[in-house]
Amino acid sequence: MQISGKSAIQELIDKLGKDIILTTKEELIPYMKDASYIKGKMPLAVCLPENADQISSILKICNKFKINVTARSGGTSLTGSSVESFDGIIISTMNLNRLLELDLSSRYVVCEPGVRIDILNAELKKHNFFYPPDPASSRASTIGGSLSTNAGGLRAVRYGATKEWVLGMEVVLPTGEIIRTGEYTLKRSAGYDLTALMIGSEGTLGIITKAILKIEPLPETTAKIMGFYRDILSVGKSMDTIKSQGITPIIAEFMDLPTINSIKKAMGIEVPAYTQYLLMVDIDSAPEALERKLASAKDIMGKFSEDVIVIRDQKRMDEIYAARKGAYSALLEQRDNSNQLIVIGDVIVPSSQLADALGQIEGYARTDGLKTTLFGHIGDGNIHANIFMDNTEEGRKKMAKLQMDIARVAIRHRGSVSAEHGIGTEKNELLYEEYKERNSLYTLEVMRLIKKAFDPNNILNRGKIFYEPD
Amino acid sequence: MQISGKSAIQELIDKLGKDIILTTKEELIPYMKDASYIKGKMPLAVCLPENADQISSILKICNKFKINVTARSGGTSLTGSSVESFDGIIISTMNLNRLLELDLSSRYVVCEPGVRIDILNAELKKHNFFYPPDPASSRASTIGGSLSTNAGGLRAVRYGATKEWVLGMEVVLPTGEIIRTGEYTLKRSAGYDLTALMIGSEGTLGIITKAILKIEPLPETTAKIMGFYRDILSVGKSMDTIKSQGITPIIAEFMDLPTINSIKKAMGIEVPAYTQYLLMVDIDSAPEALERKLASAKDIMGKFSEDVIVIRDQKRMDEIYAARKGAYSALLEQRDNSNQLIVIGDVIVPSSQLADALGQIEGYARTDGLKTTLFGHIGDGNIHANIFMDNTEEGRKKMAKLQMDIARVAIRHRGSVSAEHGIGTEKNELLYEEYKERNSLYTLEVMRLIKKAFDPNNILNRGKIFYEPD
Repeated sequence: MQISGKSAIQELIDKLGKDIILTTKEELIPYMKDASYIKGKMPLAVCLPENADQISSILKICNKFKINVTARSGGTSLTGSSVESFDGIIISTMNLNRLLELDLSSRYVVCEPGVRIDILNAELKKHNFFYPPDPASSRASTIGGSLSTNAGGLRAVRYGATKEWVLGMEVVLPTGEIIRTGEYTLKRSAGYDLTALMIGSEGTLGIITKAILKIEPLPETTAKIMGFYRDILSVGKSMDTIKSQGITPIIAEFMDLPTINSIKKAMGIEVPAYTQYLLMVDIDSAPEALERKLASAKDIMGKFSEDVIVIRDQKRMDEIYAARKGAYSALLEQRDNSNQLIVIGDVIVPSSQLADALGQIEGYARTDGLKTTLFGHIGDGNIHANIFMDNTEEGRKKMAKLQMDIARVAIRHRGSVSAEHGIGTEKNELLYEEYKERNSLYTLEVMRLIKKAFDPNNILNRGKIFYEPD
Repeated sequence: MQISGKSAIQELIDKLGKDIILTTKEELIPYMKDASYIKGKMPLAVCLPENADQISSILKICNKFKINVTARSGGTSLTGSSVESFDGIIISTMNLNRLLELDLSSRYVVCEPGVRIDILNAELKKHNFFYPPDPASSRASTIGGSLSTNAGGLRAVRYGATKEWVLGMEVVLPTGEIIRTGEYTLKRSAGYDLTALMIGSEGTLGIITKAILKIEPLPETTAKIMGFYRDILSVGKSMDTIKSQGITPIIAEFMDLPTINSIKKAMGIEVPAYTQYLLMVDIDSAPEALERKLASAKDIMGKFSEDVIVIRDQKRMDEIYAARKGAYSALLEQRDNSNQLIVIGDVIVPSSQLADALGQIEGYARTDGLKTTLFGHIGDGNIHANIFMDNTEEGRKKMAKLQMDIARVAIRHRGSVSAEHGIGTEKNELLYEEYKERNSLYTLEVMRLIKKAFDPNNILNRGKIFYEPD
């Protein structure tokens, strides 16, 4: 690999020029990390192309030399999917960062993969529109990465995950061909849905160089209900009841006491002394109907909690939204020492299973003896269990056991081991477990067949999704 | 083919029993037609399995003998995708017709492919929920067929097409393996989205034996605005303006005068004498805000039309909805003779392109000299041009030219040659044209690679989507 690696890098430089190929150690080190606890290998080079043609040239060379390639944009992956697992190069798409077109009537925006989600939404807001998927990392994360992981976020309870918001793409295949998938239209029935196949494929099938995204008018008004709870079962039951009565919040988040404490100041709220859990439910509505809709949700929450308050002030709501989005970063402050790492879990169950599943997850977090905090997008059943892990072999083992225990709770409750973060190199085993438990391991085989059809030399983001020994 | 065909049928009978294998001519003839003008070949046999295991057995036998297999449920395809194009058998999934589970909180229903859409919705209505995709054929069409073609329908302007409403599936692959895709959860990021890949694949990749469908609470109230227009450009401009001002109707349909005339009685409306086109826009809302929302849309329509009326009575609205759904059948009455066939076109363009595209389509319909009527789900840009075709070689040629002319209008306006009916055997050439014009023929190659990975012997619904000479 090293020798062909060197010739490949030389050919890349010859073809594309030194300026967009980084090769010195200091330049490469930052690309060994993403937002997860996983450390990648030092890449042989990092390419910074500016267009699809350059990416095509890079992939043709790498395919010829069978050099691994990992695509990376914002680098906010929480499962190690944007770092190299083997010897190989990284292609950063951060220089493809233009908003190309906006069509309000047709409800689409066209942009490149390096556009950060908050930047896109700041532009759309000028027109009273928005792009709904909003991973907590939206300040830093990009369209490219969020498409590649089918990112969810706070508003997925209402608007669904990323897959529901992509109409088409331009993609460079590992063999260098540039293809178009999908169209500028809101629906289409014209052959296989390659757009959908690319979403959540974590850079293993192709590199996205352009995306046609669906946009939505901003909701007219919203207000936030906060309920304070003594126990987690009541939180789960509240959500289950709200959903089965036909109420669909625009946001529904829960968090445990350690999480509340870490962002209480930023949220600027008083928390009753008995509180163990907080449930926040945002309701959107035409202004004329807001109070009636709030009352329905508030009544339900009031049956399971002692105190329920309503916040109507937009600025206060924005602050709380921002504080919640910063919860993962805030938890870093609560580590026992700076060597400790936080593993952010990401399982999901159907709403009706929430109470039972949350109870069991809380139980495992207690009995496995690792400091763990819970929060998540409870409206769609997404639970993040954040495990504080000692960075030792013993610590990793304990973490892996708790993570598997929680994954099994999700699987037993008809859920999945990954809701919105993807598989990366972190969850290959958990994914295998999910399909094994479902008696459907052949599903993974079919995925491998597709991978092989796209990428016969297995150069794209090798080691991600599928377990592969070095 | 004939000899191996015979041995294969014998093996099917030996394995599954005579009762579920039809082989006499009288039994087979009905399976040579679907709802389109296309006539299929007489199948060698029709299998009526009752579960996935039986389908797996059938596919294993057919794969061994390399016998073509076409899956069929309601048989309402408008592009010939549910009839045999070669020598082969048909598997009807109409005996897999159970509603298996309903979970309101988690917002899903589990059902088998033979369930008719209206039957499903009648059940869901009892709980104030519904399954949004509503092809005009929903009385007869099934979950299996509508998933296989990514069906749209009247409500797709608000709720999107079928692909946005499927969480998971059980699928029998052409090689006989039974796999599960997706999960019971509202989002997931766990490997390739095989569920999405199956949707719209028209039975070429596998046979769906179970589906987990997302459901939605019924809208609180709706009302219908009807605008009468002198010209089609004004219809297009109305829709474009409504959408760009952030209004998303729950239904938005247009129709030309011949279509109006064919369903006027069923709709029970008075039509001003100058009328050439009708635009119907349904607005849904919380009851408190309905009048305000109606006024916004009505104002816009009033700028482009002379008369705009509002219908608030639910029974009247239901009648009009049913009449519109019957438009295709009603047009059959307007044929010059019973040998004439109607080819229902199905292109789509982005909203902002509607006025211009509709104008051009109307122009071609006039100059190509074939009786043609226009209607469609204009809210999402979907235009059905219904061509009255003489069933002669000359007639077919003229029809094919007009269909290609209209397809090219759609392609030039950033649209697609198929919105919601699929490709079948009718549109292989149009699909090729679309990718050729986009300079992306390799997209079709990638689809072929996927087909090969799933179906190495090319036994499933051969000849559909991809052009293949006999």
